[in-house]
Amino acid sequence: MKIRRSSRLVGMTHYLLQHPQQLVSLTFFSELYDSAKSSVSEDLAIIKQTFEQQGIGSLQTIPGAAGGVKYIPGISLEEANRVIDELCILISKPDRVLPGGYLYMTDILSNPNYVNSVGRIFASIFNKKKVDIVVTVATKGIPLAYAVANYLNIPVVIVRHDNKVTEGSTVSINYVSGSTKRIQTMTLAKRSIEPGANVLIIDDFMKAGGTVAGMQNLLKEFQANVAGIGVLVEALNAEERLVEDYVSLIKLSEVNEKEQLISVEKGKFTEDLLS
Amino acid sequence: MKIRRSSRLVGMTHYLLQHPQQLVSLTFFSELYDSAKSSVSEDLAIIKQTFEQQGIGSLQTIPGAAGGVKYIPGISLEEANRVIDELCILISKPDRVLPGGYLYMTDILSNPNYVNSVGRIFASIFNKKKVDIVVTVATKGIPLAYAVANYLNIPVVIVRHDNKVTEGSTVSINYVSGSTKRIQTMTLAKRSIEPGANVLIIDDFMKAGGTVAGMQNLLKEFQANVAGIGVLVEALNAEERLVEDYVSLIKLSEVNEKEQLISVEKGKFTEDLLS
Repeated sequence: MKIRRSSRLVGMTHYLLQHPQQLVSLTFFSELYDSAKSSVSEDLAIIKQTFEQQGIGSLQTIPGAAGGVKYIPGISLEEANRVIDELCILISKPDRVLPGGYLYMTDILSNPNYVNSVGRIFASIFNKKKVDIVVTVATKGIPLAYAVANYLNIPVVIVRHDNKVTEGSTVSINYVSGSTKRIQTMTLAKRSIEPGANVLIIDDFMKAGGTVAGMQNLLKEFQANVAGIGVLVEALNAEERLVEDYVSLIKLSEVNEKEQLISVEKGKFTEDLLS
Repeated sequence: MKIRRSSRLVGMTHYLLQHPQQLVSLTFFSELYDSAKSSVSEDLAIIKQTFEQQGIGSLQTIPGAAGGVKYIPGISLEEANRVIDELCILISKPDRVLPGGYLYMTDILSNPNYVNSVGRIFASIFNKKKVDIVVTVATKGIPLAYAVANYLNIPVVIVRHDNKVTEGSTVSINYVSGSTKRIQTMTLAKRSIEPGANVLIIDDFMKAGGTVAGMQNLLKEFQANVAGIGVLVEALNAEERLVEDYVSLIKLSEVNEKEQLISVEKGKFTEDLLS
C-alpha cells in the first residue's frame, strides 16, 4: 500500500468534513496533494462509499470543468433515533421540573455532543430546502442554531429581546407570548437579513408558539421567506397552537409539578428525515 | 490496495474528528471494523502522521490494556495567522463604526467558519491547561464559547443579565461596567457549576474588562478556578484594565467615529499557541 493514497484519504476526509455544502474542485485536491486527477477521483469514490455506508452523509459529484465534489452532511435514521431516545430518557428525569411547570434543560443544551447531534438531525431534515440563514431567538436557541448552520454552511442571525447599541439600527415588533399572554418585544439588526432571504427558524422549546409566530412576523418586515421551522422540544398540552408546519424532535406530553412527573415521546420526524 | 484499509481510514478519521479529547480504545475500532488490532494500529499511525503534517492536531497514544488513542485538535501557527489576518482586514472596514465608537461585529460572529476557526485557535491555546467548563456571558460570546467547548469536549455555561424561570435557582452579583460605569447584574444557575471546577472564560469583546472581572467574581461564589481567559477583540484605549492574564487575538487600537476610522493589530498569541 502506497503511503501517499492513505495520507490523501485522511487529509481529504478532514477537508470535506470541515467544508460541508461547499463545492471543492478536483483541481484543488490534485494540486494540494500533487497527485493526478484520476487518483483523486478514485480517492473520492472510496470516501463517498464510506460516508454513505456509515451514515456520515453523502458526497455529490458535479461533472464538467466547473465541477467537483460537495459533502452533504447527514445522519442515519438509526443514529437519529438513538440520539433522540437518549435525550427523551434524560429529559424525563423528575428533578427537571421547575416551579410553574417549566423544564430545566440547560445542562443538555450545555453539552456540545448533544447540541451537535441535534444540529446534524435538523441539517439532514432541512438540507433538501433552499436555506440561506438560520434565525433563532436569544438565548437558549443559539447553540442549536449554530450547530445546524455549521452543517448547512450558512450564517446565523439572532433575534433579541433587548436592544444593544452594538447592533446598529434595528427593526422591532411587539408580540404576545402564547403561553403567558404577556406583551414582549423582539428586535433584529437592520443589516442582518437581505430581502428575499430563505430562513430556517430553530428554537429549543415551543409551548403555544408565540415566540416562533413573533419571529415569522418580524421576518415579514425583512421580506424574508420562512423555509422551515425546527424545535427540539414541543409542549403538547398548549391550548392553542399559533404555528403550523414545523418539525419537533421531542414531544412533551406532561409536566406535573406536584408529582414531579415528566412524560415525553419522540416526535414524528422520520418522514422528514428520509424524504 | 485493499478496499478495507482505505475505508477504515476514512471512517476512523471521521470518528476521531467527531470525538475530540476522548480516549478511544483499539478494541473499539477493531470490533467496529472487524479488523485485527495490529491493522488498526497501523491505520492510526498513518492518521497520526497526516494530522500532524497537515496541522489538523495531534493523536496521543496511551499504551496498555486501558489505553487507546486520543485526538487533540490543533491549528498550525500559519493557519491561525491566516485566520486572524483575514479577520483584521474585515474588522477594519470603516462601515463598522457605530454611534458611540462601538463596532459592528455581528456579521463576523454569525459566520460559522470564522467562529469555528477562532474556536480552534483558543482550543489549541488552552488545551494544555486542565479545563472542565467554558463560561461566557450572553449573548455575543455564546457561539465562540461553544466552538471552543466543541474542540475541548467540555460543556458551556452561560452567564445571563436577566433571570429566567427556566434556570431554576440562581446566584447573582452586581458589578460595575468598566467603560460605561453603570451598575449591572449577572446571574448564573445554581446547578450549573460544581465547586472546584476549572473554568475557561471566553468572550467576543473586552473594553476595560468590567464584564470579565464580574464573571471572575461570580465564579468565586461557585468556588470555581479561572484557568484561562480568551477574548477575540480587545480595545486598547481603555483607561484602566480590570483584568490580567488573558489572551486576545485582535487588538483594537482606534475607533474614530468622526473620521470612520478603525485601526486593528494582531494580538500576541504566538507564544501561547506554541507553548
